[in-house]
Amino acid sequence: MRDVAVIGVGMNKWGELWEKSLREIFVEAALLALDDAGVDKIDSLYVGSMSSGLFVGQEHLASLLADYLGQAPVPAVRVESACASGGLALRMGFIEVASGMSDIVLVGGVEKMTDVNGHEATYALGTAADQEYECYHGVTFPGLYALIARAHMEKYGTTREQLAMVAVKNHANGSLNPLAQYPFKITVDAVLHSVLVADPLRVLDCSPITDGAAAVVLCPLDLARKLKKPLIKISGSGQATDSIALSSRQDITWIESTHQAAKRAYAMAGKKPEDIQVVEVHDCFTIAEICVIEALGLVEKGKGGRAVEEGLTSLQGKIPVNTSGGLKAKGHPVGATGVAQAIEIIKQLREDAGPRQVKGARVGLTQNMGGSGGSTVVHIFERV
Amino acid sequence: MRDVAVIGVGMNKWGELWEKSLREIFVEAALLALDDAGVDKIDSLYVGSMSSGLFVGQEHLASLLADYLGQAPVPAVRVESACASGGLALRMGFIEVASGMSDIVLVGGVEKMTDVNGHEATYALGTAADQEYECYHGVTFPGLYALIARAHMEKYGTTREQLAMVAVKNHANGSLNPLAQYPFKITVDAVLHSVLVADPLRVLDCSPITDGAAAVVLCPLDLARKLKKPLIKISGSGQATDSIALSSRQDITWIESTHQAAKRAYAMAGKKPEDIQVVEVHDCFTIAEICVIEALGLVEKGKGGRAVEEGLTSLQGKIPVNTSGGLKAKGHPVGATGVAQAIEIIKQLREDAGPRQVKGARVGLTQNMGGSGGSTVVHIFERV
Repeated sequence: MRDVAVIGVGMNKWGELWEKSLREIFVEAALLALDDAGVDKIDSLYVGSMSSGLFVGQEHLASLLADYLGQAPVPAVRVESACASGGLALRMGFIEVASGMSDIVLVGGVEKMTDVNGHEATYALGTAADQEYECYHGVTFPGLYALIARAHMEKYGTTREQLAMVAVKNHANGSLNPLAQYPFKITVDAVLHSVLVADPLRVLDCSPITDGAAAVVLCPLDLARKLKKPLIKISGSGQATDSIALSSRQDITWIESTHQAAKRAYAMAGKKPEDIQVVEVHDCFTIAEICVIEALGLVEKGKGGRAVEEGLTSLQGKIPVNTSGGLKAKGHPVGATGVAQAIEIIKQLREDAGPRQVKGARVGLTQNMGGSGGSTVVHIFERV
Repeated sequence: MRDVAVIGVGMNKWGELWEKSLREIFVEAALLALDDAGVDKIDSLYVGSMSSGLFVGQEHLASLLADYLGQAPVPAVRVESACASGGLALRMGFIEVASGMSDIVLVGGVEKMTDVNGHEATYALGTAADQEYECYHGVTFPGLYALIARAHMEKYGTTREQLAMVAVKNHANGSLNPLAQYPFKITVDAVLHSVLVADPLRVLDCSPITDGAAAVVLCPLDLARKLKKPLIKISGSGQATDSIALSSRQDITWIESTHQAAKRAYAMAGKKPEDIQVVEVHDCFTIAEICVIEALGLVEKGKGGRAVEEGLTSLQGKIPVNTSGGLKAKGHPVGATGVAQAIEIIKQLREDAGPRQVKGARVGLTQNMGGSGGSTVVHIFERV
């Protein structure tokens, strides 16, 4: 298998983009990525999107977007793994370039979530859980993560304040990211007094509903060298699955799919958790970030809450997590999230992250998760 | 890239499977394929499904199915390209095995379409067309293919009877396939007097709404040799896209995505149309089969209708098309169709197709199409 580099990144301002359609949002981000890479012709396209059928009544998405981007008749594939669809698209692009099948592959993610009302959005997002064994009985995603949060608090003594500190940290980072949906700071007090959604989670523990897209351009490392691009290599890719219903898991505070995906990615990259210098994780809810940094091996099991409280994961900490603002502040257009995570790490490794730059970062990791952990995709990036 | 073989196939009886859920239907087919291959552990799973979100309210499908099949934590990817989702899943599995990333890959397709009412099914299927530029104005798929049929009749003199003959041929083949949804013969007269759906297409020109699944097991050719399996190799894989809206095409009677995908597959396999001995094509409507055999280069442009009338594509003809019964008689659970097409060709190349066996077939082709031709996946299989 060939070494694979990322030579272009593109992302537009995320938010409630009433005046733009899904195809316009996607093409904006894709053109930015192609421009950044300095290429105008691609061999193949991957698009991550969770539920364009339920959100905008459009499937057959990759063909539509390839055409609208002026790239038909190239092969174009839409992949879906709920909120991990973007990370999965990246993994598919990585495999295609590594295999030798294609040289220039565009990987994008997109979701247009605000064209439906709140009830419809909740239904659409619920399709990432087990429809027959979870949603049918009335539970929604805040409810599922509330169960996880409660269990983590009971088992490990994680505090309500520690949950809030995840949101506070990510908003502090997001305030330095002009593309974020909510680029402003919040306080622990604001989180604790925000509207209760599903006890113990409040609205400021939850990532928002967002319209947005993100795209990256991949090619063989040798070609990147010829093109004189900053050499950022994808050195590890891991994906794993688990039961998507919480009721089938041994321990709901432990995200086994993240543990397994990370194990595979670390092995492929020849890295250990201690080697990672900057991380983007899937903080769809504050509790998720706490569980995920444990499953990635960045902190000990049960100590995720304390790590946040001690500032270990802050921008100035030992292992900065979600320097982009995370899903919480940057926004969470589900299919785009995994690709945007990669963009943040690539900017960090290029030393192009401006005021949120992690000094001297050469190895970074992304963790993108579907549902309540039914699937995870982990990538490791390295500046070579 | 490594050579890839298909070592197992599995398909259950298709139809209106009221008493089974999507996950049960899928696992049935997957277990049959694993059993046929003689393996019980896989490295990776691909699932083709067009719109499980709209049909059964379930996304995150590949994780759900990997788990229900007892294969979690393996990587599992759901791919979508409308009605070409199954063929696309096969292509992704092919790339993964060819790349060296995985050895044993299970590729499945599934759709459960009868849990919604007719209006909802029409809406869900319409998401394969351009929602904003086609569906919004009221057109549905029978309408789009009726436009193509009318144009083909005007331009090439294709007759209403020739359209009917496609359905008659495919039902004759389907009557020999016990897994088909409609395993019985029909007559030209029955087609011509069936209910008008969208002039000139009548209900017996249309493929049905179906619940069903299909699965195949892939591995490197060298491993297949060790396992002493019949050696059926995937020698060519091509995918291509086109505008999904008919209004953006130069000539709506010509399926350019099929032409382009076939060109790529022929080139990879080192084959010409004349080398192909048995073919499964995407006859979602009778006119589709006529256009497709032209775009594949099996007959001259404009002569698809005449080819059917002359018996060229019948089971006893020079180039038998849709020996399985096609989408028309076998059924069309959209995401499963592309995988089932591969199963029919593999059975033919194994000389295991019973009363519908094409004598001495060693090279076969599948053509799986999204929407009205916005995407096509073509595969070429060879007995080695």
